[in-house]
Amino acid sequence: MIRIDAIDLFLLQVPDFDAARDPVKDTLLVRVRAGQFEGWGECEAAPFVSLAAFVTPESHSTSQPIGASVLGERLEDPADITRITQRVAENSMNVLQAPHIYSGVEMALWDTLGKKLEEPVYRLLGDERAFPKQPYVVQPFASAPEHTYLDMRRIVRAGYRAVKTGWNGFGGGDFAADRDQLAAAREGLGRDGRLFLDAARVWGNDVATARSYSHLLDAFDVEWVEEPFDATALGAFADFSHYHGRKRVAAGENVHSIAQARQLLDIADVGLIQIDCGRIGGIAAARDVALYADQRGASFVNHTYTSHLALSAALQAYAGMERHSLCEYPMDQSSLSWAICSEHLLPDGDGTICAPEKVGLGLPVAPEAVQKYAVDMEIRFGGTLLYRTPSIR
Amino acid sequence: MIRIDAIDLFLLQVPDFDAARDPVKDTLLVRVRAGQFEGWGECEAAPFVSLAAFVTPESHSTSQPIGASVLGERLEDPADITRITQRVAENSMNVLQAPHIYSGVEMALWDTLGKKLEEPVYRLLGDERAFPKQPYVVQPFASAPEHTYLDMRRIVRAGYRAVKTGWNGFGGGDFAADRDQLAAAREGLGRDGRLFLDAARVWGNDVATARSYSHLLDAFDVEWVEEPFDATALGAFADFSHYHGRKRVAAGENVHSIAQARQLLDIADVGLIQIDCGRIGGIAAARDVALYADQRGASFVNHTYTSHLALSAALQAYAGMERHSLCEYPMDQSSLSWAICSEHLLPDGDGTICAPEKVGLGLPVAPEAVQKYAVDMEIRFGGTLLYRTPSIR
Repeated sequence: MIRIDAIDLFLLQVPDFDAARDPVKDTLLVRVRAGQFEGWGECEAAPFVSLAAFVTPESHSTSQPIGASVLGERLEDPADITRITQRVAENSMNVLQAPHIYSGVEMALWDTLGKKLEEPVYRLLGDERAFPKQPYVVQPFASAPEHTYLDMRRIVRAGYRAVKTGWNGFGGGDFAADRDQLAAAREGLGRDGRLFLDAARVWGNDVATARSYSHLLDAFDVEWVEEPFDATALGAFADFSHYHGRKRVAAGENVHSIAQARQLLDIADVGLIQIDCGRIGGIAAARDVALYADQRGASFVNHTYTSHLALSAALQAYAGMERHSLCEYPMDQSSLSWAICSEHLLPDGDGTICAPEKVGLGLPVAPEAVQKYAVDMEIRFGGTLLYRTPSIR
Repeated sequence: MIRIDAIDLFLLQVPDFDAARDPVKDTLLVRVRAGQFEGWGECEAAPFVSLAAFVTPESHSTSQPIGASVLGERLEDPADITRITQRVAENSMNVLQAPHIYSGVEMALWDTLGKKLEEPVYRLLGDERAFPKQPYVVQPFASAPEHTYLDMRRIVRAGYRAVKTGWNGFGGGDFAADRDQLAAAREGLGRDGRLFLDAARVWGNDVATARSYSHLLDAFDVEWVEEPFDATALGAFADFSHYHGRKRVAAGENVHSIAQARQLLDIADVGLIQIDCGRIGGIAAARDVALYADQRGASFVNHTYTSHLALSAALQAYAGMERHSLCEYPMDQSSLSWAICSEHLLPDGDGTICAPEKVGLGLPVAPEAVQKYAVDMEIRFGGTLLYRTPSIR
């Protein structure tokens, strides 16, 4: 029987970060060792705080370090991961950061277990096969429509047929400028390209303004609009979903619990739920949401802007669900995120991607990248060394 | 004009913690300095993780350290605190731990501002006067009913007329044992004592079992039952509230956003909302919930099991709301929490307590306690010293 022998955390950071150049500044990788097997995962958002949640001394009985609920546990079959997830939820109920750190841990557990059982993770989750997904890339509006047009042309030339755009002031009041940006994006992408818009919560709780954009979205065939409102504005979402069409309203990237995701589907009534495996608590939590969305006739898509390790984890959650055929795809090969894996999920000849037909998550982590980017850290708490950056070897 | 010049964090820990003896193991205190004024606050739950959220290097633009949104800001009137709260919410949206650390920071901002403006915090919040509240103490069921009886007698002798009890297996299936415990508590407390029950989520999502306890709660005149269900089981709460009576169902201690609290009132339909100022994001957030509960005909009460500094902060939020007349009261004078303040909020001759008629939060922190219990810590991140335990002087 194998048990979880060791969990090591590596906080990676771009040493000379430049927001204009680097899409990602830092990240947190998790390495699990169990018997002769090793697996990896990646946590999204605020890596240092997530690391702290793993190594923190125990406080209250419901504020235990995440590590304490995982280390030493049996890892023989998927039920073990279910049990560990439940332990973390109970023992760290009052560590708000827990879902973010556990997300990467859980991915690494699945990667390890897949290697032990010699199966891709999606098969351990009960799917027979992995269906191809159409990748969409994320390309914010440029500073001017003519540059937006050129960005879209570049993406089309790179072989992508679906783009999510937005930000850079969109929705902030200058309707004509917003129309010009959307027009440029549509023109650059071509009539057959799929265009999505991330409104980045610009309308707060203001349904009337969101409604005033509905015709504009129609005019440029924007399939769906993401996060028109603040995450808590469930009533605004529901109103707008009814008006604009449920299938054309998306949300969910910041969700960090299954319950939150269900509220977006049940109360906000969004038709597309976007889940980040690195935030919600891992692959099984994302899958739970995917199945629930499917039951409700909504669509599921991943939210991923980090490594292809995280992308593979995201794909495992809904690999076998043929109807849910889109995939958010990190394409920037100059990023820290890209460097993390030594292999990548590249589009096939028909432009689709697919969860790898390999054991575990199927994407090897590049030790030289971990070595290059890992920050040297040390945390001393009283007389105890809580954390020191481990060796990659 | 004064600005926030410095914020220092002190993680206190009982050096030889014994769960059987010590109600609290550790805590996180926040000291704010602005001009010649100094204020204090206390964060609830997982102090090391909250500390990390304050000092973390910036990650994504929505994962900024809490400190960055507060330090250097103007602190002249209540609108400044509102603005800072908004900054933290935006800049640290993806730091899950943010509400817990900001709770203590916000308390300390109010304490500082109250000293500058020479007013109690409740008056800065718009209340003219502070009404007395009846304190209730928390006393879990003992291992056997006869000891529960003795515990309750002791509490009555100490002058308290209201007790919340629960835990130690209550609700887990042995109905006769549960009845004996409740009977002992009621007998010890006397017929006129007010008795509340904390079910500590024992019934999960199971409304039928909760209903089967309804008559038992009636039989021993249990005014309300707290957390019969998991925090996410909003439907179960609503069903049970309808059956058992809305005013007799309570929840909210783990709430860390105003939106969550409103859902408990709107969807779970609880009649008593219990808010911890050290978790929800501070005094103004708690007050927002109190006002909302009041509008809906529900009752508001604090959740506090830490210091009397935190208790004062909790009271400020609803000091002027006469109808909301209960107060959860930490009475254990042997605790780390008690040692934090050099003065305490003690019941008056009529057994009530009241927000202090003093500037700020009105409760001085004992420097010798901070010195005695502060853990020596050091966090090194790359070439940077992120944190070192500051001097109390």
